[in-house]
Amino acid sequence: MAVRHRVVVIGSGFGGLFATRRLRRAPVDVTLIDRANHHLFQPLLYQVATGILSDGEIAPPSREILRRAPNVRVELANVTHIDLDARTVIGDQLGRKLVASYDSLIVATGSSHSYFGHDEFERWAPAMKTLDNARELRARLFGAFEVAEFETDVAARRSWMTFAVIGGGPTGVEVAGQIEELSRRSLRRNFRSIDPASARVVLCEAGPAILPTFGKRLSEMATRELERKGIDVLVNSAVVGVDASGVDLRSSDGKTTRIECMTKVWAAGVEASPLAGLLAEASGAEVDRHGRVHVLPDCTLEGHPEVFVIGDAMALGDLPGVAEVAIQQGLFAARTIRRRLRGRAESKPFRYIDLGSLAVVSRFRAVASIGPIRVGGFIGWLAWLVVHLTFLTGFKNRVAAVAHWAVSFVGRSRSERALTVDEIRPESKLADPGSH
Amino acid sequence: MAVRHRVVVIGSGFGGLFATRRLRRAPVDVTLIDRANHHLFQPLLYQVATGILSDGEIAPPSREILRRAPNVRVELANVTHIDLDARTVIGDQLGRKLVASYDSLIVATGSSHSYFGHDEFERWAPAMKTLDNARELRARLFGAFEVAEFETDVAARRSWMTFAVIGGGPTGVEVAGQIEELSRRSLRRNFRSIDPASARVVLCEAGPAILPTFGKRLSEMATRELERKGIDVLVNSAVVGVDASGVDLRSSDGKTTRIECMTKVWAAGVEASPLAGLLAEASGAEVDRHGRVHVLPDCTLEGHPEVFVIGDAMALGDLPGVAEVAIQQGLFAARTIRRRLRGRAESKPFRYIDLGSLAVVSRFRAVASIGPIRVGGFIGWLAWLVVHLTFLTGFKNRVAAVAHWAVSFVGRSRSERALTVDEIRPESKLADPGSH
Repeated sequence: MAVRHRVVVIGSGFGGLFATRRLRRAPVDVTLIDRANHHLFQPLLYQVATGILSDGEIAPPSREILRRAPNVRVELANVTHIDLDARTVIGDQLGRKLVASYDSLIVATGSSHSYFGHDEFERWAPAMKTLDNARELRARLFGAFEVAEFETDVAARRSWMTFAVIGGGPTGVEVAGQIEELSRRSLRRNFRSIDPASARVVLCEAGPAILPTFGKRLSEMATRELERKGIDVLVNSAVVGVDASGVDLRSSDGKTTRIECMTKVWAAGVEASPLAGLLAEASGAEVDRHGRVHVLPDCTLEGHPEVFVIGDAMALGDLPGVAEVAIQQGLFAARTIRRRLRGRAESKPFRYIDLGSLAVVSRFRAVASIGPIRVGGFIGWLAWLVVHLTFLTGFKNRVAAVAHWAVSFVGRSRSERALTVDEIRPESKLADPGSH
Repeated sequence: MAVRHRVVVIGSGFGGLFATRRLRRAPVDVTLIDRANHHLFQPLLYQVATGILSDGEIAPPSREILRRAPNVRVELANVTHIDLDARTVIGDQLGRKLVASYDSLIVATGSSHSYFGHDEFERWAPAMKTLDNARELRARLFGAFEVAEFETDVAARRSWMTFAVIGGGPTGVEVAGQIEELSRRSLRRNFRSIDPASARVVLCEAGPAILPTFGKRLSEMATRELERKGIDVLVNSAVVGVDASGVDLRSSDGKTTRIECMTKVWAAGVEASPLAGLLAEASGAEVDRHGRVHVLPDCTLEGHPEVFVIGDAMALGDLPGVAEVAIQQGLFAARTIRRRLRGRAESKPFRYIDLGSLAVVSRFRAVASIGPIRVGGFIGWLAWLVVHLTFLTGFKNRVAAVAHWAVSFVGRSRSERALTVDEIRPESKLADPGSH
């Protein structure tokens, strides 16, 4: 029996998953490796963090998505090494060693959050990248109101009811909007000592404007809308310190201010996964300041036409780090592999079709930048809805998730508010800060 | 201003929650204290553990349920002490001290699992009492199939695909049925090296029959139905050992056997919460062998007519430890307090109206024992459905939960299957047992 062409895909995010799906009828054997058992619909992760959706609604198991692709094997493993010469991927599977040989490799390991050299911030300001992050943030958010309810010291209570979101990109804007929303609507009548609606939400952005990639008009529209809702939008405010009880900001003119707040969310920076750096070292390719490895115009690693690096792990021209780039590159890599197997080895460059960017500012209001079209308000929100509905297609839970989500948008309910005993035990970040 | 009668309720389970709701229009101030922020619809906890429902669907926040009861204050605290003389409850609120004085006290702290003196079993066989338990069991269940997929040793793989459920009561029967269901239906086509349908599910019961409280006919019917589905029902099989890789059983004739299995679920014993013991010590009342404190026929503590102990925390006649007793006693305690406030101090005994017991054996099949009526099969399942729908009334998510649940019953999907990176890191129980 002839050995079929072996493709290894690392990462079941947008890039890896779309590449794998596109290879399911090709004459290849695919191994998809990821540290978790699920794809993550990251654009809605903030809805898990704020109690709207459940884990499963945005994290369908990769095996389930690929169950009708008999040529695909899913491996749960943490890839630790790629041997470019031996064309082998080495991973750790819960203490056991995984060795996967490839003829073609697609590295789609994405990015994690970056604290710009201040990893000590992470303890107090969790990021928004994984389900674990979202669960932790959810516990902190709902827990903060619980503590404020019994806290008798006025200043401390104020600090538990102040929420700082660090980073004015789409994730930061969406998280800030949802925290404000839950304080003003979802927790209504729930408390006796505090009025959740009096919570203060601060959105801190180091640059001169939030949502800079959306252009001046939409950025200003989003700022107005957030401010109308009562969110403090602080631009030119770089976070220079994060500790148990607050954040320190430095404005562009060098002045520093402090915001006392127990709950912080980090939505500021991203950094490519360490595998991008390993690949760069092994191949001699450059990495950019976000740790992304530079690839050739056909998304392959210099000197290694059999290795594709796609999505947030790679740097190519001025491609942004968004899901849409990862998806298109995943499809492109799969197409290139299929073409080569048909004997057409000429290299074609990847061309990105910009379908635009979207961010939800508040209920029924979003900003959308789609090619030359830039819309805000309700029309922007409709655009956001259509794009996400389209994206969710192919997800097993799309009907349930969309229904759930529609109900949450229209109504005031947050159904995922349970704090477990483990989440509120004294070691948690909800304990008296004096005890740390 | 006259100080109103103060009622403190400890525990937001069925007993505490129903008592509190019944007091919402009474001329009293109620403080409801619980360690978690939610009520737990425990009869469906096994559906969270097996990936059918999400946390939020069975754990609505107590504050949300009671938002229209302005005389009720919810406190998140772990009660550590009850001073019967000073009529004061002392608790810990994340490191801060809670002191709540009462005129009437309702202790509804329920029960936790009991390992019959073998607490070392807990590490390997988590129980099914809290959301944390359910999350852990879910990670172990779905994780076991993940490990089996890459495990190359035949015996080890077999062991990862063997699931022991310890305890043949309703919870054990339901968990065993659902594990079998997910292996045979929900994971279909998901794996390449293993056939999930070949998983072995063993239900171990120390006594001579499963579901003994349902009577001989239903017990036999349930046994037949479980065996027809392929579950090994081992009666007269007491668990005498639990370790990383298996369980040791001793039959009634003294013979011991071992089952090699990596995943164990403890559904065998319950024990009243430690507060029941503290109350007994302070009042001189007796406790039974499950740690439940004996109460007078009106559910009050001897010598303390102002202290009610209800549900799984108390022993009274031969009342079973089921939700229905807790609910009826909660309503009874609230009624008694209201009657006393109207000046009618005479003591009435609590009378339990037995609405029956139910257990789901498989899809569309349940056994129901309702008064003199004992039905099984599809009719039993319909009875189970009606009772649970009725129970769920008053829950914010009932429509979503029931819809979700109906879809899961009819279809094959399990939407809550996400394993996070934290859940599958090497320290988890999924790691190579040799590494422990």
